Amino acid sequence: MYITGAGRTKFGVLPQTMPELAYEAMNSAIDDANADVRDIGAIFVSNFIGGPLNGQLHLNSLVASLLPGTNVPIVRVETACASSSTALRQAIFALDHYDMVMVLGVEKMNSRPIIGITEAIAMASDRQLDQASGMIFPASYALIAQQYMRRYGIGHEVLEQVSLINHQNSRSNPLAHFYYKDVTLETIRKSPVVATPLNLFDCSPISDGAVALVLSRKRRSPRDIRILSSQYSTDTLSPSQRRDMTSFAATKIAAHLAYQEAGIRPEDVDLAEVHDCFTISELVALDDLGFSEPGRAPELIMDGQVLRDGSIPVNMDGGLKADGHPIGATGLAQLYELMIQLRNEADVRQVSDARIGLAQNIGGIGGTAAVTLLGRD
Amino acid sequence: MYITGAGRTKFGVLPQTMPELAYEAMNSAIDDANADVRDIGAIFVSNFIGGPLNGQLHLNSLVASLLPGTNVPIVRVETACASSSTALRQAIFALDHYDMVMVLGVEKMNSRPIIGITEAIAMASDRQLDQASGMIFPASYALIAQQYMRRYGIGHEVLEQVSLINHQNSRSNPLAHFYYKDVTLETIRKSPVVATPLNLFDCSPISDGAVALVLSRKRRSPRDIRILSSQYSTDTLSPSQRRDMTSFAATKIAAHLAYQEAGIRPEDVDLAEVHDCFTISELVALDDLGFSEPGRAPELIMDGQVLRDGSIPVNMDGGLKADGHPIGATGLAQLYELMIQLRNEADVRQVSDARIGLAQNIGGIGGTAAVTLLGRD
Repeated sequence: MYITGAGRTKFGVLPQTMPELAYEAMNSAIDDANADVRDIGAIFVSNFIGGPLNGQLHLNSLVASLLPGTNVPIVRVETACASSSTALRQAIFALDHYDMVMVLGVEKMNSRPIIGITEAIAMASDRQLDQASGMIFPASYALIAQQYMRRYGIGHEVLEQVSLINHQNSRSNPLAHFYYKDVTLETIRKSPVVATPLNLFDCSPISDGAVALVLSRKRRSPRDIRILSSQYSTDTLSPSQRRDMTSFAATKIAAHLAYQEAGIRPEDVDLAEVHDCFTISELVALDDLGFSEPGRAPELIMDGQVLRDGSIPVNMDGGLKADGHPIGATGLAQLYELMIQLRNEADVRQVSDARIGLAQNIGGIGGTAAVTLLGRD
Repeated sequence: MYITGAGRTKFGVLPQTMPELAYEAMNSAIDDANADVRDIGAIFVSNFIGGPLNGQLHLNSLVASLLPGTNVPIVRVETACASSSTALRQAIFALDHYDMVMVLGVEKMNSRPIIGITEAIAMASDRQLDQASGMIFPASYALIAQQYMRRYGIGHEVLEQVSLINHQNSRSNPLAHFYYKDVTLETIRKSPVVATPLNLFDCSPISDGAVALVLSRKRRSPRDIRILSSQYSTDTLSPSQRRDMTSFAATKIAAHLAYQEAGIRPEDVDLAEVHDCFTISELVALDDLGFSEPGRAPELIMDGQVLRDGSIPVNMDGGLKADGHPIGATGLAQLYELMIQLRNEADVRQVSDARIGLAQNIGGIGGTAAVTLLGRD
């Protein structure tokens, strides 16, 4: 099966409403696929937090309102920050029954929220075990950072480098949240503490945005990109129920299944998009995906191997850190970047001879993890 | 494909937490299937309002916490009150890839909510077009009732009869929300006005509860019940964008597809579970499903054709009105009742020689509609 069309909005603090963002992305994707809305047999909508923030659940029907008279099956999927990758998987399942389907990820986070943004995002963590004791996400990822740094003997300068590289990458992505922003190592170092050892520039931003992909069972155009595998796995909601916080079992399992299904190894991957909701999670991801031995991701970073001409270019679009993190759209944004790269349409940020791309998308603190592999035939 | 195990909790105002309800239903379903949790390849969780009410999103990972070490793919689906029926459809899609999967519907509505229950439920309606003008669900269904009653020349006594029959049915269902309650026509008539012409007894209650079903690609036991079809359709979120409020296009389309896939007609159905969130919606459902010509559902009600020995027994469990309406579990509760009936295990409420059962499950004001057909081989 193939991705035959891709569309996205700019990410950032945007004037558009959620329906407007959704419409723009779907319209772009259908246009890019050179298709008609009536070719789409079913739609899968990813959105994380439309209820608590925007007062809008039942988003599948909202999408039906945007496409009047189609009446196709539309469903909403939510698995925290991994929502759009798991929605993709449901769409792939459905491709056995429909010739073409669409996946939409949308999030409108900068609005007049019904409840506070931090409280709303914290709903992706365990209500009884973590929320009740104030373990919001920056605090949880700070614990992970402390353990990783202590266990593997690295300092904050590695995290700073992750932030710097992602911000530099976003400077060649006009759709990125921080495309406009010239960020220096000095800015990153001097940014205010959020939760020790994480500073402001270790954290991804609060973004609005939408991405849509059109999938087809059969190849329709030479620009189509093949879906080699889409897998996801789950783990306990609270990290307090796990033995090790320096690695996510769900990523490892999903990656193992994906590599197996695609018949490839980590070293066959030409570029990757990984889930850097906090800088530390990029390190954990690189280890868990097998791009480095456990604890050796810092070397990939410090040696420049994640740069465009390195051995494993990572987050060419700027990642969650600098492209942005409109939660329900994030997983699809990763695939949007892989599409552009594998189609050889990435302009100044093109990875040369990119044939296989990997995306890793996390929900919560690794309670969900999805790994998707795309390939140019 | 087959439903090979079914489990549910009691519905009502319950002491259990959401995880406890989920665990009880899953455990019962796996037990009923005579299976082991390690036989389950993937899980599909339906929940409507865990974010705004319970502060708990990312429910797929919460379910993973309840089944430690399994790490299987789990996803949450939300399509308002039709969430569990559309989750079922995703599970069926996945049955091409896994031998056995589970669908879980759970809702904990009676709790200390983060925001008010009426405001939270209203999130299933259009934020801009309906919520902003105070069109909460009882108000919308009151408009439907007024139009249906005027167009077809019926009075409130038909709605009272729908309520009475459902309450009487629930008296033979020990798991029903109102099993304990002796409701008379007098009680129904004198109940307080909610939104003219709907009184309190025209409205389904606020229930807690959970239901789980285990699906299998192949028959595993003589008690397994075949899934003949599972279809859903969508429509605009706001009824203000439609021409007719006395009928739901999404129900008609889903029913048409389901009858076609199963190769049957409405008159082949031996019993039905329909979505009586308000009494009026039972009338609309009977018309839309083809059990009556448009506007003739009142005759089915007043002639007693929906009773256990009638031509089309409806809501033998008491329906949403009296069995209860734990939103994310409601569609699966309908299928639970069909399972019991088709297995010929319904005891005093057994419909004789039941071979084909239909369930119709609505989201919002018909923005989503699912129709499922089950059959005894």
